[in-house]
Amino acid sequence: MAIKDLFKSQLQVVNVGLESFRTSLDQAHAPSVQVDWRPPVAVDPKDLKKVQARAEAIDKANAKAAAKLLAAKPFLIGLEKALDVVPGMKEDLILHAGPPITWERMCGPMRGAVMGALVYEGLAQSPEEAAKMAAAGAVKFSPCHEHSAVGPMAGIISASMPVYVLKNEEHGNLGFCTLNEGLGKVLRYGAYAPEVIAKLKWMETTLYPTLKKAVAKLGKIDLKNIIAQALHMGDEVHTRNRAATSLFYRAIAPAVVRTAPDPETAAKVLEFLNGNDHSFLNLSMPASKVSLDAARDVKDSSIVTVMARNGTDFGIQLSATGNEWFTGPAPVPDALYFPGFSKADANPDIGDSAITETAGLGGFAIAAAPAIVQFIGGSASDALDHTRRMYEISVAENSVYQIPGLDFRGSPTGIDVRKVVEKGIFPVIDTGVAHREPGIGQVGAGILSAPPEPFQKALAGLARKLGGKK
Amino acid sequence: MAIKDLFKSQLQVVNVGLESFRTSLDQAHAPSVQVDWRPPVAVDPKDLKKVQARAEAIDKANAKAAAKLLAAKPFLIGLEKALDVVPGMKEDLILHAGPPITWERMCGPMRGAVMGALVYEGLAQSPEEAAKMAAAGAVKFSPCHEHSAVGPMAGIISASMPVYVLKNEEHGNLGFCTLNEGLGKVLRYGAYAPEVIAKLKWMETTLYPTLKKAVAKLGKIDLKNIIAQALHMGDEVHTRNRAATSLFYRAIAPAVVRTAPDPETAAKVLEFLNGNDHSFLNLSMPASKVSLDAARDVKDSSIVTVMARNGTDFGIQLSATGNEWFTGPAPVPDALYFPGFSKADANPDIGDSAITETAGLGGFAIAAAPAIVQFIGGSASDALDHTRRMYEISVAENSVYQIPGLDFRGSPTGIDVRKVVEKGIFPVIDTGVAHREPGIGQVGAGILSAPPEPFQKALAGLARKLGGKK
Repeated sequence: MAIKDLFKSQLQVVNVGLESFRTSLDQAHAPSVQVDWRPPVAVDPKDLKKVQARAEAIDKANAKAAAKLLAAKPFLIGLEKALDVVPGMKEDLILHAGPPITWERMCGPMRGAVMGALVYEGLAQSPEEAAKMAAAGAVKFSPCHEHSAVGPMAGIISASMPVYVLKNEEHGNLGFCTLNEGLGKVLRYGAYAPEVIAKLKWMETTLYPTLKKAVAKLGKIDLKNIIAQALHMGDEVHTRNRAATSLFYRAIAPAVVRTAPDPETAAKVLEFLNGNDHSFLNLSMPASKVSLDAARDVKDSSIVTVMARNGTDFGIQLSATGNEWFTGPAPVPDALYFPGFSKADANPDIGDSAITETAGLGGFAIAAAPAIVQFIGGSASDALDHTRRMYEISVAENSVYQIPGLDFRGSPTGIDVRKVVEKGIFPVIDTGVAHREPGIGQVGAGILSAPPEPFQKALAGLARKLGGKK
Repeated sequence: MAIKDLFKSQLQVVNVGLESFRTSLDQAHAPSVQVDWRPPVAVDPKDLKKVQARAEAIDKANAKAAAKLLAAKPFLIGLEKALDVVPGMKEDLILHAGPPITWERMCGPMRGAVMGALVYEGLAQSPEEAAKMAAAGAVKFSPCHEHSAVGPMAGIISASMPVYVLKNEEHGNLGFCTLNEGLGKVLRYGAYAPEVIAKLKWMETTLYPTLKKAVAKLGKIDLKNIIAQALHMGDEVHTRNRAATSLFYRAIAPAVVRTAPDPETAAKVLEFLNGNDHSFLNLSMPASKVSLDAARDVKDSSIVTVMARNGTDFGIQLSATGNEWFTGPAPVPDALYFPGFSKADANPDIGDSAITETAGLGGFAIAAAPAIVQFIGGSASDALDHTRRMYEISVAENSVYQIPGLDFRGSPTGIDVRKVVEKGIFPVIDTGVAHREPGIGQVGAGILSAPPEPFQKALAGLARKLGGKK
């Protein structure tokens, strides 16, 4: 073809990388193909070399850690007050989502939830007094994750709150999570109005004792079985929990009826569970937590054991590096915003719920839940693509948690920080978006990529640990 | 290419039609491609010509019939004894699945169920006496479908049996179906042992009054909404009803608790529903029936309004030809048989449950339920293919019943007998397989194609009707 013919022919454009370049082409109605390319994650070449030199030992360690994660058997075994069971819980301690944070650096929704919890506990008479107490250091803060616990959104756990008690029957470790409050004005989104506190009190005095007696009657409930079934029923048990909530409800209802003080109480408790398709989220999260905790502290393992956000920072932990946090700024999700809200209203990503992705559920299993993609914009094949991409950074496939749309292939499980860094593919996380002001609640939902910085730091941390004497 | 080179080159075989020819190629390890081709259905050319000449009128009539089918709004509005509500029900009448049949031609499972029903009603003291009565003509038989009712498998309805009462709130018509008995030895598979009768009595005296009061308290339950959700949750509401049963259970449980005579009764009723993932089948069937009944008797419409099997014959009805049955031998399913059973044990296809396929659910929506294909052998893409093929013979897509795996495309709805005959594509039906002897129960599950004969006859019937004066 002569050069002059080239200018007469239709443009065939392939745009590599930054999608914004393509916008101008679209505006000129020039057809183009977008290639999704990202630069590899910048890490110190010495760290990378050190990690690569130990590849075989790390692979072996990861196989061991992944085997533990996959073998975990999470059961709900009871309900208790946090003070009575959560390790290290104290009356003046507030547990929160994500990595450690001070009152000064806390985002709006988390501050609001702390204020609500102090009023709920009777430690403050008003939200204003609570804020002053918190600012004056009269209350201590600690991440849920450092107490075998997890919490959605703000993730606040205070001493009198009832928690589900989970046991990983394979490895014996316990895990804890509060009960889901439902929709509307709720503490986890930073609301602290009197009706929010009143609902928490109803949960403490009615919901909690009723469910506690029902679970005691049943002995235990197999959550791994429920999650496995729910993945065949359109849930990924993070943003969508309708099937899992249904199966949990079916399992527990007869026992609620038999043990409730009266039929009306039983009916109200069942209606509360039924009225909230997210009821099971507060079970899928600790089920993921007790499974991942079994994979902690495996020498040389580069598997991610925690991904969590406090609304300011995004933090991760690795198996080999134990309780060390690797953090970076939490991103603001590119979500589908509810009418009247935009990204300007959004708080940066918040909550311990990314523990589901860390365990191979949520965004990693989103191919099982195409209804989510439809809700936030996209097609069923986008959902398949998200999950397919996550196999690239995972070390194993879960034989029990399967994806129907991928011919029942096991869900990608066990994030390898090396693969994340080397391939520049970041974990996909399904997420709800909180308003940045406390108490307004959810303003959108979406899918986001975990930010690079925690993974860059974690690789360095892994390199240090490999180099050290332990 | 010279001829001699052809013999040296690798064979490239395309096998058209009978797959058995391909087996020899497979045995010789010769790669080949199978083309799924069937001869067009043999019909009288004069009939075909007559129908083709009226194509425009038929298309218009089908659009009208399909609009009625899609607009239907099935609700559960109550429970009653069959004698009190089913049109034409009498104490000495037994309703059964499929087209009309005599005792002499009845298959084993249907005979067994009739014997059980006569003992249940107290009309016979023993199954043997019941068989003699039936053979002597002391009891009358009629298809459920001729009484606005449907029944799974043998589909037996006798006078004292409780039935769900459904109302199509868009068109005002009612529909009826018995309550699902659960698994194991059950009347619908032809079992009549004392424990079968005892369970039916428990259903009559405990399950029925409890559910009746609960539904009365709720007023009504929107079944279209439950079915739409269930299709997003891995059900096609024929062979798989786990999600729909869960959602129905969630909806009704608080009312059961509030209205039951005591908590233990409420718990037992909930456990019975929970113990049987097919509970909802006996609601998805009449929901399909009241929807299709709205599309009956549309002049010139070639839409199929009934597909039903009595275990001997497979019968269909068309909108334009009203109550006329077009029948042919019921096929024996090529199913996946349970261990210890084979096709030799199988009864020919039986039950009114193909009403779900007729309404665009079941096999027509199997792409929503890939777990079924996995269970009976096959892949998720096979499930997609089955549903895709059904669009070829359907006149509409359901805007409410959607298939997630096909990007929420509406399920193919409204079978056009012309398309079936012209394309040689037969409705795909999800089915359970009964043992040919009464009382043994289910021996397998599978997917089958409806047989050609009823459709051949129906096209001739349509041609006659178009030709006649009406």
